Amino acid sequence: MNGLYERFAAPAREALPRLTDAERRVTEGELAELELHGHDGEPLLDALRKVAALVPERLYTDSAEVLLRMHEIAGSGNLQSNLSSLALVRACFAHGLVGDEGAGPAELVVGRGHIAPAFYAEHYVRGSLPFAPLTTLHQGGLTGVVHRDLGFRTTMRYSLGVGVAQAVSLAWDLTRRGEDRKVVCLAGDGELHEGAAFEALRFAHDAGLTNLLLVVDANGKGIEPLAKPLNTPYLAAHLGTVEEVDGRDDGAVEAALGELLARPGPAALVCRTHKGDHSFKPAGAAQPPPAVRPVPSFASTAGRMLAAHRERADGELAVFTPDMAARFGLGGHVPYTNTGLAETLTVGMTLSLPDHVTKVVATDAMYYMDSLSMLTEATTSVRNLLVLAGRSWGAWGGAHNATNLLGLLLHTRVYEPVTTAEFHACLDRLARDPATTHVVSMIDAAFEPPALDCSADIDGGVWLTPPGEAPDAAVVTFGYAGVLVAAANRDVGLPHLHCAALAPRLDPATLAVLGRARRVLSVEYNGAGGGFGERLRAEHLLPVEVHAVRRDIATRVHRHQLPLHAMSPGLLRERLARLAQNPEGSAHAAAYA
Amino acid sequence: MNGLYERFAAPAREALPRLTDAERRVTEGELAELELHGHDGEPLLDALRKVAALVPERLYTDSAEVLLRMHEIAGSGNLQSNLSSLALVRACFAHGLVGDEGAGPAELVVGRGHIAPAFYAEHYVRGSLPFAPLTTLHQGGLTGVVHRDLGFRTTMRYSLGVGVAQAVSLAWDLTRRGEDRKVVCLAGDGELHEGAAFEALRFAHDAGLTNLLLVVDANGKGIEPLAKPLNTPYLAAHLGTVEEVDGRDDGAVEAALGELLARPGPAALVCRTHKGDHSFKPAGAAQPPPAVRPVPSFASTAGRMLAAHRERADGELAVFTPDMAARFGLGGHVPYTNTGLAETLTVGMTLSLPDHVTKVVATDAMYYMDSLSMLTEATTSVRNLLVLAGRSWGAWGGAHNATNLLGLLLHTRVYEPVTTAEFHACLDRLARDPATTHVVSMIDAAFEPPALDCSADIDGGVWLTPPGEAPDAAVVTFGYAGVLVAAANRDVGLPHLHCAALAPRLDPATLAVLGRARRVLSVEYNGAGGGFGERLRAEHLLPVEVHAVRRDIATRVHRHQLPLHAMSPGLLRERLARLAQNPEGSAHAAAYA
Repeated sequence: MNGLYERFAAPAREALPRLTDAERRVTEGELAELELHGHDGEPLLDALRKVAALVPERLYTDSAEVLLRMHEIAGSGNLQSNLSSLALVRACFAHGLVGDEGAGPAELVVGRGHIAPAFYAEHYVRGSLPFAPLTTLHQGGLTGVVHRDLGFRTTMRYSLGVGVAQAVSLAWDLTRRGEDRKVVCLAGDGELHEGAAFEALRFAHDAGLTNLLLVVDANGKGIEPLAKPLNTPYLAAHLGTVEEVDGRDDGAVEAALGELLARPGPAALVCRTHKGDHSFKPAGAAQPPPAVRPVPSFASTAGRMLAAHRERADGELAVFTPDMAARFGLGGHVPYTNTGLAETLTVGMTLSLPDHVTKVVATDAMYYMDSLSMLTEATTSVRNLLVLAGRSWGAWGGAHNATNLLGLLLHTRVYEPVTTAEFHACLDRLARDPATTHVVSMIDAAFEPPALDCSADIDGGVWLTPPGEAPDAAVVTFGYAGVLVAAANRDVGLPHLHCAALAPRLDPATLAVLGRARRVLSVEYNGAGGGFGERLRAEHLLPVEVHAVRRDIATRVHRHQLPLHAMSPGLLRERLARLAQNPEGSAHAAAYA
Repeated sequence: MNGLYERFAAPAREALPRLTDAERRVTEGELAELELHGHDGEPLLDALRKVAALVPERLYTDSAEVLLRMHEIAGSGNLQSNLSSLALVRACFAHGLVGDEGAGPAELVVGRGHIAPAFYAEHYVRGSLPFAPLTTLHQGGLTGVVHRDLGFRTTMRYSLGVGVAQAVSLAWDLTRRGEDRKVVCLAGDGELHEGAAFEALRFAHDAGLTNLLLVVDANGKGIEPLAKPLNTPYLAAHLGTVEEVDGRDDGAVEAALGELLARPGPAALVCRTHKGDHSFKPAGAAQPPPAVRPVPSFASTAGRMLAAHRERADGELAVFTPDMAARFGLGGHVPYTNTGLAETLTVGMTLSLPDHVTKVVATDAMYYMDSLSMLTEATTSVRNLLVLAGRSWGAWGGAHNATNLLGLLLHTRVYEPVTTAEFHACLDRLARDPATTHVVSMIDAAFEPPALDCSADIDGGVWLTPPGEAPDAAVVTFGYAGVLVAAANRDVGLPHLHCAALAPRLDPATLAVLGRARRVLSVEYNGAGGGFGERLRAEHLLPVEVHAVRRDIATRVHRHQLPLHAMSPGLLRERLARLAQNPEGSAHAAAYA
């Protein structure tokens, strides 16, 4: 057994039922070779290249077809983003920009984070990647975003717009070392809305860097269409030369890239492309019968819940989102302003609105991490501010500590509702306490709501499994973890207190129950540092054992994230059972460490 | 006694010895009127306007002269920034943009946060402000940055670049309400380097807002000269019309502003101005004799300490700062790259540098708050990263929770050294553990270093006052608070443990001493939430009483900040004495609340 085999074999085997006969045959053959030849130590891509050579049969010769199959097998992803950049990716291969660092005619930094699959597909048709890994996209094998381990010069984890900074950092370093090499940066037109991308281009211009070649996939679309086409005079103001080309014409892109690589000085190559729907939907799933239609994620019901609240409260709403309307289900329910991929501005748009308007900003929790100063400006000066913070733990990753950081801002309280009633209770609380910004963590998962909730007292806790007289052990949960624990606790039956508030205000009776228990476990699908459990310890000096996320979020789908953080039903059940069987525990303080 | 009187009388009286005879006479007369007529409830500016009418004598008729006197009296500030914008400010007064909201021909948003004094000075010569408040700049009376209480439409607390967002938010709101009014935004050319400002201008363009008039003080200088002059094609790409004018010519600026106010559509007015040294130095203090030359702030010795480290370790440094080289004393000691006012890019510049290079980024702790995603990208992918986080609590304010937020990032440890040896110990620790980003909080204050420090074990603690056998009470401090407590503790003599680490690793003997004490007080000049003291409680379940910053940082100088947060020597001495006199204390957990 070896590292490479472990990484790909399990998800590839899991994918076998979704493959064609031919794909299955090739994949099984490659897995056998992987088992024999893949070994630790060797660079991942080198090992895969060897396996590709051992199983040379190509099932597809067009990387567009490969991309389609990858997404059909994965069942999710950004197929259209990949297709829209495919000619650009092919041009990079054609000019030798993909492969060993320092070997080609220029360095390549892929800023369009989501288009890693286009590179894998092109590797496949060129014979430098076998088929089996392609079946593991988003499942723990291949990542949808670029990663150093998978043949890219850089890794992207968090920020859109970071690629331009990576490229400018590299261009600056090459320049100071006197190396006469260009840096090609692949970017999207939406991504260029990010302030971070502007800061990098402005610096490159003002520092006089002459070795930056920005290649833009200008498909006029983020998730929704962009309000205006790419502002080429803006690019010209910073890069001087701007060439435009039909980005759907492989030959034209390749020729233009070659020409700009040969020409001295900085430049932008704007490729006019086309992109369909942002998120991939399997063809068969377009119109499932009502009986099997999937439950929508809780986050995607936000629009409907906001509309119901506006109806009830008869107030004025102003909703801003950086291209995340679909994720929060805003369309058709509440009017909203798409601010484009510009999170800081999204928060800033609330700064000058009248007090009585309820201001809603909606994006991923991690995207607020580059706007905490602006958000503090808002939490200290704006009344009636609701911050919706999406939690995905999905294929794109996410900052596991974002919720805790938001909770440390001035004049802020954080909630993670898991029922419609709890969501409304958060909004009602905001109406009663408009000087406090309410951050509402919104779960990107579909689940059955618990039978009881905290809607009657959103700051308190509710026993989902009652404690009886004087329990020896108890489990306390924050938000979504309550749903996971409730499922795992069905066979265990531990007293279970569910809280929607990150910093709950527990009543004396509840605190007395917890204080008398010999062991208390806290569970949160959230960063441990400064989180729910640590706050319980700090505030009440309860010897709570904290079960929370302690490692980085990986880029894989939700069901593969759960076991990574010991949050899967099975692992949680084991944890609860250990608590129930051994209420004495070890020394309390040590249990924490 | 009344609110207005309290706000201005104490600092104005404190300033009396620094005034001319005529100024003193007028100030004393005005204070008498203030005592009689100022009362709570009335808007501050209205009350001051009344006093100005009661004491109509004007000591100066030129606001430039008033600005000079304000800064001479305050002893600090940004005189040259104010002078460089003075013609722009005068033009705003001339066109009726200053005063009651909604009354003038357009709304004014002042984005150049530091130029509030230019408005006060102009108010004074126009008779709408008395003289006494002018003597209280940065001392708790008038703030150096714009504030709603002082006649501005908005308040600025944290971010440069926020003004453009405030203006675009307002322009958007006026547009959707169908109001045909312009928004004039006063900005600086340096401030336009901020990604947040770009995001706002890009949105204004793409949303088709026609009512934004950006007035730029283009003095070609932040704290240091800008690398390149303002990029006017960039502004034209977003605002269409760009007019340029000699910004030192009052009449020309007034005429151009009037013309653009009358013309339909968005526009930028670029005023070419001149600015001298950024920070005001009193004329007499230019060359003090060595005996009275002030001790430099600890932060400003960073350059010298980095140079010494490079000498010792013989390593390669790459230092990036967003215009903060003077604050950290970099010039003449280490080469550095000024990235302009672009904090996210400053962090981003480290992303593609080789592993062996020690990357140093240096700015105010609060400025990282809009770059935490980018910083997380760096803390997870960059080796040998040193983050210098300035702590000012100065006239500009600062995020009291910034250090704690930085401490929650992945792969990060935070230290606050107070001696050169502790700073070097942080760098040595980074060399031993290059995968962990070392955040080093740098104090903007001058102080005598303590006799003992944590340099031998930077993660541990050292007893500045030893505990003896089994003390009843003890005080534990983080970083700079140790210096403050050591001074306050001289007459009290409590056992005092000093730590340089935000999350110290205390040895069992030390923990045993703390665990046996009946009362333990922690002191940190730092936000309480998730800080040093709360971490001690959470980690060790010690019933520590947390003495820390709990309210917002106000815009006043350090010596006026200290009592605000109960950190002045006198208040600390009282706190320590209470602990020493009553080691039994009240119930431990209650003492925390």
